[in-house]
Amino acid sequence: MTADVAERVDNSSLLSRALLSPRSVAIVGASADPSKTSSRPQRYLRKHGFEGTIHLVNPGRSEILGEKVYPDIRSIGAPVDQAFIMVQADLVPGVVEQCGAAGIPCATILSDGFSESGATGRDKQRQLVDRARAAGVRLLGPNSIGIINAQDRIALSVSATLTGETLLPGRLSVISQSGSAIGMLLSRAQSRGIGFSVLVSVGNESDIGVGEIGEMVVDREDTDAVLLFLETVRDGAAFARMARHAYARGKPVVAFVLGKSAVGQEISALHTGALATDYASIDAFLRDHGVLRIEMLETLFEIPDLVKGRTPPTGRAVSIVTTTGGGGAMVADRLAGAGVNVVPPADSVIARLAKRGIAIKKAPLVDLTLAGVRQDVYGSVLGELVEAGEADLVVAVVGASAQFHPEHAVAPVLRHRSSRVPVAAFLTPEAPQSLHHLAGGGIAAFRTPETCADAVLAFFNWRPPRPEADAALAAEIQARIGPLSLTGALNEVESRDLLGKLGVTSVASRVVVNLDELEELDDGVTFPVALKILSRDVPHKTDAGGVALNISNALELRKASREMLARVRAACPSARIEGLLVQPMVRGVGEALVGFRRSASLGPIVTVAAGGVLTEIHRDFACATAPVDLTGAREMIERVRSFELIRGYRRQKRGDCEALAHVVRAMSLLALVPSVTEAEINPVMVMEEGRGVVAVDGLVVAYPAQSSSGGSETDG
Amino acid sequence: MTADVAERVDNSSLLSRALLSPRSVAIVGASADPSKTSSRPQRYLRKHGFEGTIHLVNPGRSEILGEKVYPDIRSIGAPVDQAFIMVQADLVPGVVEQCGAAGIPCATILSDGFSESGATGRDKQRQLVDRARAAGVRLLGPNSIGIINAQDRIALSVSATLTGETLLPGRLSVISQSGSAIGMLLSRAQSRGIGFSVLVSVGNESDIGVGEIGEMVVDREDTDAVLLFLETVRDGAAFARMARHAYARGKPVVAFVLGKSAVGQEISALHTGALATDYASIDAFLRDHGVLRIEMLETLFEIPDLVKGRTPPTGRAVSIVTTTGGGGAMVADRLAGAGVNVVPPADSVIARLAKRGIAIKKAPLVDLTLAGVRQDVYGSVLGELVEAGEADLVVAVVGASAQFHPEHAVAPVLRHRSSRVPVAAFLTPEAPQSLHHLAGGGIAAFRTPETCADAVLAFFNWRPPRPEADAALAAEIQARIGPLSLTGALNEVESRDLLGKLGVTSVASRVVVNLDELEELDDGVTFPVALKILSRDVPHKTDAGGVALNISNALELRKASREMLARVRAACPSARIEGLLVQPMVRGVGEALVGFRRSASLGPIVTVAAGGVLTEIHRDFACATAPVDLTGAREMIERVRSFELIRGYRRQKRGDCEALAHVVRAMSLLALVPSVTEAEINPVMVMEEGRGVVAVDGLVVAYPAQSSSGGSETDG
Repeated sequence: MTADVAERVDNSSLLSRALLSPRSVAIVGASADPSKTSSRPQRYLRKHGFEGTIHLVNPGRSEILGEKVYPDIRSIGAPVDQAFIMVQADLVPGVVEQCGAAGIPCATILSDGFSESGATGRDKQRQLVDRARAAGVRLLGPNSIGIINAQDRIALSVSATLTGETLLPGRLSVISQSGSAIGMLLSRAQSRGIGFSVLVSVGNESDIGVGEIGEMVVDREDTDAVLLFLETVRDGAAFARMARHAYARGKPVVAFVLGKSAVGQEISALHTGALATDYASIDAFLRDHGVLRIEMLETLFEIPDLVKGRTPPTGRAVSIVTTTGGGGAMVADRLAGAGVNVVPPADSVIARLAKRGIAIKKAPLVDLTLAGVRQDVYGSVLGELVEAGEADLVVAVVGASAQFHPEHAVAPVLRHRSSRVPVAAFLTPEAPQSLHHLAGGGIAAFRTPETCADAVLAFFNWRPPRPEADAALAAEIQARIGPLSLTGALNEVESRDLLGKLGVTSVASRVVVNLDELEELDDGVTFPVALKILSRDVPHKTDAGGVALNISNALELRKASREMLARVRAACPSARIEGLLVQPMVRGVGEALVGFRRSASLGPIVTVAAGGVLTEIHRDFACATAPVDLTGAREMIERVRSFELIRGYRRQKRGDCEALAHVVRAMSLLALVPSVTEAEINPVMVMEEGRGVVAVDGLVVAYPAQSSSGGSETDG
Repeated sequence: MTADVAERVDNSSLLSRALLSPRSVAIVGASADPSKTSSRPQRYLRKHGFEGTIHLVNPGRSEILGEKVYPDIRSIGAPVDQAFIMVQADLVPGVVEQCGAAGIPCATILSDGFSESGATGRDKQRQLVDRARAAGVRLLGPNSIGIINAQDRIALSVSATLTGETLLPGRLSVISQSGSAIGMLLSRAQSRGIGFSVLVSVGNESDIGVGEIGEMVVDREDTDAVLLFLETVRDGAAFARMARHAYARGKPVVAFVLGKSAVGQEISALHTGALATDYASIDAFLRDHGVLRIEMLETLFEIPDLVKGRTPPTGRAVSIVTTTGGGGAMVADRLAGAGVNVVPPADSVIARLAKRGIAIKKAPLVDLTLAGVRQDVYGSVLGELVEAGEADLVVAVVGASAQFHPEHAVAPVLRHRSSRVPVAAFLTPEAPQSLHHLAGGGIAAFRTPETCADAVLAFFNWRPPRPEADAALAAEIQARIGPLSLTGALNEVESRDLLGKLGVTSVASRVVVNLDELEELDDGVTFPVALKILSRDVPHKTDAGGVALNISNALELRKASREMLARVRAACPSARIEGLLVQPMVRGVGEALVGFRRSASLGPIVTVAAGGVLTEIHRDFACATAPVDLTGAREMIERVRSFELIRGYRRQKRGDCEALAHVVRAMSLLALVPSVTEAEINPVMVMEEGRGVVAVDGLVVAYPAQSSSGGSETDG
């Protein structure tokens, strides 16, 4: 370990201790009025048994609830790990500077009025961060409701749930961009006997963000899984580091993300002050970094035991055993509808069970209603299904016996905590004690058929994190495409040439610089052809009237050329027109769109979709972070439902999906070059299987190399 | 009331009493072994305080648990309301006949081995029903786990949930095709303080089905809402009667339906022995009969207070007020994603609240986090939103105060039980007492953001039941289309002529009977044209090579004609070819498919979809029961997402959706004619707005009038 690295690790673990396990805190802006939020940290710390030192700070009081109050930070005169700041926005920077002067390493800021409140607030936040850096103080917030450390009984938070709840120590940690999610999760999980290690509200993430805290949390010995409640991802790089670190340590990261809808994104932007980033990009980013994505609130704390210490499945098959038809069917129906294979038991399993006098049917649901709810039956069947190797996961559904006779079917489930494939339990009745038992026994138990299916689906959609972006690969690609002398949009020929260097086959085309050339072109051209304007200043050719298709003879071509030039000149008077492009019409068995764009926070996001406007209406596309390897590209194509058309749907001709995967891969490599801002091929014509694909258009936008830190913001 | 009707009502209410509120029961096949299911009815009846008479029947015993046992029904010698039969399948008919002889009006049959178990079982069930009819005994089941009447403390059921639960009387009734759903719902709802009137397991519905029991239940004074757990709909006519009756009495019917996926349908078919009916048809049938359809288990008992005594909304706007950002956002995001308008408060509301010192923003989520959680603030804002008239429903989200200070935000919600627009409550923390309070106060309270959004969405998708099929209208349509002399598939010309009688405009076309005619055709034809085979024996023309499009001149036409005749003769050697059809190619701004087919249980189901194969892949179509009025037809078109293309998406030309609605209406009228089995127009070309639509194909299949009871089964 070099001295630098050693110091960084040391700093990081010091910060982790000060932030998540402080032994001495200063509460700035403490109030004696119990109706005020600012009275809470003191009360909650005491109520939940904080064993460290509390220093109250408020210039207007000398005592609150019998405890001494200091007029300011500097008067404390004792070492402090963390300040919790609740004063009004304008006073915060001064307090932070006092923290610096007093050697306090970090401050959590509850105060609002920063970036979540508009332009002025954003300026204030920037100034605050600058002054905190200068003072050597790290910040959590602003707009953070604080941290709760249930293991060490530190309730340094204003979360109202602390009023009545008793903290239950456990092995899950929560990091949330929404303050209110902390209370939701704490109270709901604890009522199920599921406790927490630390719960952190990150607020505006002006300084310390989800990624950095995540790394600290992953390193905690008392944490087995990290649960995220997200409205956006602000610092993709830090997040990616955390996610890889967690995966390497076998600690699953599970995320609930708000903002699928436009309204949801609007609300998130109002809450967090962050620019809205489209959900599809965030979802792709999380998937590609090994994060499990769930859709329902309670799945967050129900899923960890299903995945902790495990790796993503290779298949997509589930077995379901149940003591009761309806409940099992509810889970099966949801899973099958989402594309999970609900598989019947193997013949060998049926035969082995038959030998032991247990008759089960070859049906998707292994329904033991008739076999009777007896421990030996249920346990035997469950054991066989787990060991059979047909399924990547087994769902154990238990009916009314979960209420009154947990020894019948709940007890056998408890044996499968560490079985070869994970076992998820769903109890059909209200059975709080059995849920507690299962949670205590390390079995993921689900209260509703919906969260059970949600978790199983998340498991099947779980992937290992992609390897880290490889600087050598980026340099190699950069070298292959050569220096980019231009900035802004390249014209179609330049764009396709550049893509060609990465192995993308394009349609042959002729450039005509003046109309006289058209006369000589005749014999070299096979009609019908497409005619397009060639100009760096007209990246959106169709909108400007710069595309004409299916031109069937020379006469038409000349006419179309004259008309196109007139149209484009009228539409874009200042555009420098470099010529006209004549291309043979290419017909494939399908069309695709392949492109990438950069998100300021997430980096390059590659997209593949079937061509045509219905793709947008049905939101039928797949996204991934670059680079995408061939396996990843194939999976992306697999996720696009419209590509059923080139996968042989209804005996239509199969398209060359493999060649399309190579184009997706190539596009993702181009995305590694920082000076390329965005690129798109629309359409790629997909030929019959084995005959490749052909780019019939192409657009590459380049910027000077300075934008290597992530490129321009395209999320807005 | 005529004597007939009076007798029917009288019989029905006698049956209702005997079935749902029996005062004297015979338990046939009772067992003394507590590990046996057949020991349960006696134990459960006693445990839950049955006040009537229990007659145990078992030829092998004289006493069970201290109670006398009769060797058979006839020995009882006292009036009995209902027999509960648990003997093996082969003995059931004999017992039922004894019931008849003893004057017992109805029997509930737990025994399995009937239609759910295959062909032999189906035969057994048919014979059982015949013998029961002859004996004058009405049947519930087989495969019914019985009835629970919580109001009258009658636990005539083997549902294992009765082992521990105490019955909580309430005003919801459940009818379930899944026996296990009874226990799931009972235990979960009761834990929330929500009780039941009656819960009925209908089993195989060999005689008394969901519709008939539903009518009895709706007529109970102690029932406010009917909750259905369905795997299929067996008797559409009886179901429709029940649903209309319930709607007329202001008692909502809410349904959860299993079987969205193919696996789910397979499981349902195995459970119920019923033929699988596709989910889309069942969903359309339920919608068109005023049934609320929900997707999550607990929504079933959470939703009733939101809808009871109300009528479906006219708009699709929701206001959401919350004391906490994240929880409100979860509901808002789900609703907006499903197409509900999450509307910000009206300016007038903001202004009125400002006058009272309450500042709220013009944002989709009315977030009172900063305004503070005080009863006067929350109550005032909620009151204003409810009264404003902007929204058709208001969601009240309450955060941590729901746990410890229900007086702050839960109490104000309780004032809105009978407000002008319904109020749904979602509590973000675990807050069982507040959930109890709200349930007790008649407010629909939701435990999770997901069920809350599910219920709100169900409310917005709720429609009044369609008027009953009108015999006069059917006769009028029959008269308009005239007698159908043919049976089987009509050819395209006949099909389009028939549709023309109902106002559907078709493309002009020329029939060519022999190829010589083609020579004379030339001057009357505008190329390009389509050429099609005309034959009643080739209903699927494309598959047989009987369609050629875009023929551009006379020479091509003659060539295409010869080739087509050869192709079709090869593909369908026995087909009688009636000629060739020459049609101008019609180009619209979009294409649609409109058709109907008959379901044995549900009657005719009309479908509209955008043309093309992607419609199938994306499952993008809308179904409804016939007849469909113009409003209904417009709504169907609105539900098809691909029709965005003709609704002006991205400034594309708008299509004539109104003319398309008329075709949907016409198709639904044709469906009223019993002798028409199915019909389809594929495609209907949709012209620019105001220019109508044109059928360019058509297929009508007719059968002799005998099939008026529902036509052939097309669900299989």
